[in-house]
Amino acid sequence: MTQTTPDATTPVGRLDPEDAQLALATVQEVLHRHALVENLVHRQEQNDSRSDLVEGLLHRQHEAELSALVNSLHPADIAFILESLPNDDRLLIWRLVGAEHDADVLLEVADWVRESLIEAMDRQDLVAATGNMDADELADLAPDLPPDVVAEVQKGLTIEERARLIEAMGYPDDSVGSIMDFEMVRVREDVSLEVVLRYLRRLPELPDHTDQIFVVDRKDKLLGTLTLSALLVNEPEIDVSSVMSPDYLSLSPLDSDSEAAGAFERYDLVSAPVVDDLGRLVGRVTIAEVVDVIREDSDEQALSRAGMQEEDIFAPVTMALRNRAPWLLLNLCTAAIASFVASRFEDTVSTIVMLAFLMSIVAGIGGNSGNQTMTLIIRALAVGRITEKNVWQLVKREMLVTFLVGLVGSAVAAVFAWGISGSIPIALVMMAAMICNMLIGAAIGVLVPVVRTRFGKDPAMGSSVLLTFATDSLGFFIFLGLATIFLL
Amino acid sequence: MTQTTPDATTPVGRLDPEDAQLALATVQEVLHRHALVENLVHRQEQNDSRSDLVEGLLHRQHEAELSALVNSLHPADIAFILESLPNDDRLLIWRLVGAEHDADVLLEVADWVRESLIEAMDRQDLVAATGNMDADELADLAPDLPPDVVAEVQKGLTIEERARLIEAMGYPDDSVGSIMDFEMVRVREDVSLEVVLRYLRRLPELPDHTDQIFVVDRKDKLLGTLTLSALLVNEPEIDVSSVMSPDYLSLSPLDSDSEAAGAFERYDLVSAPVVDDLGRLVGRVTIAEVVDVIREDSDEQALSRAGMQEEDIFAPVTMALRNRAPWLLLNLCTAAIASFVASRFEDTVSTIVMLAFLMSIVAGIGGNSGNQTMTLIIRALAVGRITEKNVWQLVKREMLVTFLVGLVGSAVAAVFAWGISGSIPIALVMMAAMICNMLIGAAIGVLVPVVRTRFGKDPAMGSSVLLTFATDSLGFFIFLGLATIFLL
Repeated sequence: MTQTTPDATTPVGRLDPEDAQLALATVQEVLHRHALVENLVHRQEQNDSRSDLVEGLLHRQHEAELSALVNSLHPADIAFILESLPNDDRLLIWRLVGAEHDADVLLEVADWVRESLIEAMDRQDLVAATGNMDADELADLAPDLPPDVVAEVQKGLTIEERARLIEAMGYPDDSVGSIMDFEMVRVREDVSLEVVLRYLRRLPELPDHTDQIFVVDRKDKLLGTLTLSALLVNEPEIDVSSVMSPDYLSLSPLDSDSEAAGAFERYDLVSAPVVDDLGRLVGRVTIAEVVDVIREDSDEQALSRAGMQEEDIFAPVTMALRNRAPWLLLNLCTAAIASFVASRFEDTVSTIVMLAFLMSIVAGIGGNSGNQTMTLIIRALAVGRITEKNVWQLVKREMLVTFLVGLVGSAVAAVFAWGISGSIPIALVMMAAMICNMLIGAAIGVLVPVVRTRFGKDPAMGSSVLLTFATDSLGFFIFLGLATIFLL
Repeated sequence: MTQTTPDATTPVGRLDPEDAQLALATVQEVLHRHALVENLVHRQEQNDSRSDLVEGLLHRQHEAELSALVNSLHPADIAFILESLPNDDRLLIWRLVGAEHDADVLLEVADWVRESLIEAMDRQDLVAATGNMDADELADLAPDLPPDVVAEVQKGLTIEERARLIEAMGYPDDSVGSIMDFEMVRVREDVSLEVVLRYLRRLPELPDHTDQIFVVDRKDKLLGTLTLSALLVNEPEIDVSSVMSPDYLSLSPLDSDSEAAGAFERYDLVSAPVVDDLGRLVGRVTIAEVVDVIREDSDEQALSRAGMQEEDIFAPVTMALRNRAPWLLLNLCTAAIASFVASRFEDTVSTIVMLAFLMSIVAGIGGNSGNQTMTLIIRALAVGRITEKNVWQLVKREMLVTFLVGLVGSAVAAVFAWGISGSIPIALVMMAAMICNMLIGAAIGVLVPVVRTRFGKDPAMGSSVLLTFATDSLGFFIFLGLATIFLL
């Protein structure tokens, strides 16, 4: 989480969530004029010094305009604009961002943009930008920074900060350790609130998102938390020990960040202490980090269902290829197998060609219906709502629901089949095959995610491949199989 | 957001995010034993009084066990367990929840469960539970409550509270007004921090998530905010006016809650004032509500992509049917139209039956590839990253990426087609058709969500129907069309 000066973090005036978007539009507008001018000028003689002059002037004018606009924005909004521009424009704007914002923007900006920004900065700027970051912020950036810069910067740290940096860099992504910070106010339990208040007045400001301060003993063991509310509503003479709450939710550095986020959500927390196995206070997680975790998790899920990872909408094409091709090739294989299965019934299809046009309906609806079941189940799994005890109830329920939907749907489909083929038997085969395939889809929609989760796999992505594969292949097989038996 | 007593809101001890799930498992375990006993007993003579006695005893024993367990939990965890049980068990547990938790649980529990819980409560209990709720909490529940209960409860409110209740009930869902609360600490700008501190000491506790108090004039016009940090680090003699921040982000009651959530996320806010058009302070939004908004939005999106709304995994089957059937029937229609299109090429297919088995591959991959593009675009739209200026860049980029992926993929597909049909011409037609169809998918994947968004429609759901429809119908049409031209 960025540790900016108050004026930088406090957005001015009424909420206009489109502020950033308006700024983006303006930036694009200026960049556009900019590009036009350059083309115009370049179309003239290159050795025409006047045109160079003109270009230079317009250039400087545009840059002044852009820099004034961009540097007036909140770092989070600058980051948003950088994320929203193609790479060249992005770097052009990044050069115009004032050095005082560099640190905040680097911390706010998405990973897939950060790299390119860091590459574009020279060593001094990087050292300057990262010089006064906190250990936890530095740890977030370190993987993207040139080693020599990290080496340089960590020279400037105190021994304690250096220890924290090493610690923070040690924790795996998706762990509480990777999102915790070290800005905590500690007090002893045997002092009065008056003492605490006087102590706080000696600080320049409280760490962001301080809703409670931590009561520790000499060994830094966490004894309880003193909420600012308790500090403010009680009389100054009272001792900390008598108003601190000994019941608090504490995290371990190795807890999963998603589970921690779940706890913040359920219990409406603003901050939570992180303690090691010996009960010593080692860090703090704040809601600001948690909100990012929640957002990232939901984005990841949306993307993984389409078989992708996070992608810069302006990333180099090669990167996009690497991101998308595997999934498509995988689907291509399953589709090929399915059509191979169908091709085993060549004779049947060549006798009744209509089957060729109906079979894709059977396969498709099975997939759609299974996908509905799977979506519900994956969400129920995500919040831990599914246990050994109720999974069979769920299977039964989904089967029943699907069977009933299938009756309706397959009746409609049968009418269509009859209309297009003029044959009642074909319509009946269609109906039977469709219901079977939808039931298969439902069974897979429940069982595959449940099993994958039990084995610690991500339920979303792999499951949907399996689902399509099964509903396509079996859809063709059942439909054409029944047709072969009853219609020939 | 629930306004519980500290002991109820503070979860004890280390984070074990599985606490709630363990409790759930235990509850299910006991309910299971319970059911077994009842079956056992019922299998005996009904008029056997001993068995009734036994049943009664076990009954009471189980209930005691359950109620002890459930009532030891945090209201949010009780809500979780109720959400995770089938309706009968849910109501059995609900009866065992202590009256002191009723209010909190009702506020925590998901909408689709709340109704059934309220139905199961008698009038007095409802009045008792809702009696001491704040106006904003009552407003959240009011739609589900029996009118006479609302009438009864609002009698107990002060005129001010009643005015707030009416106001809060007036705001549309998804508006800031619907998630704001009224628990705010107001101070004047001309007093010293000492006065503020003394004023706060007169309060029993600060409202949840108070990170700033609001500085207003006599007309309740918001002049600035005083962060607790500023209050605590500055000397008591200083005046509020000199340390309050006149720059703050304020919301309007009619702003969209999602946009407000975006602002909380970007600017790392804990609370934000809500002011009316005259700049008067009317309410406050806290991060606790915002986190719920973020979660609900992402859930809604995941479900709407599968053509569903929020569904209780144990909802009555009829409800599930109403939820799922429309989407499946819609897909059935598009699939039927696609297969009708294909059936226009009956002669071609009957001449070269292999085409029947290959055409579904062409259609399917076009859909998959378009879905990847669409997923990226919908997410970029959601964060406002797409503007008139860059939409064409995006189209071009997606076309290029898709074309390259298409080259690779269609080459593989061509090899398969050649292998299965032994015909080079078929393989070439396959390749051409597949690339075309993937390009169509990409174009639709970008343009449809963009256009739908411009017209204020939800991009996710409708777009994916259109996508499948187009890639199926056109996939068949192009493939069989090319085949008719070049292979006959």
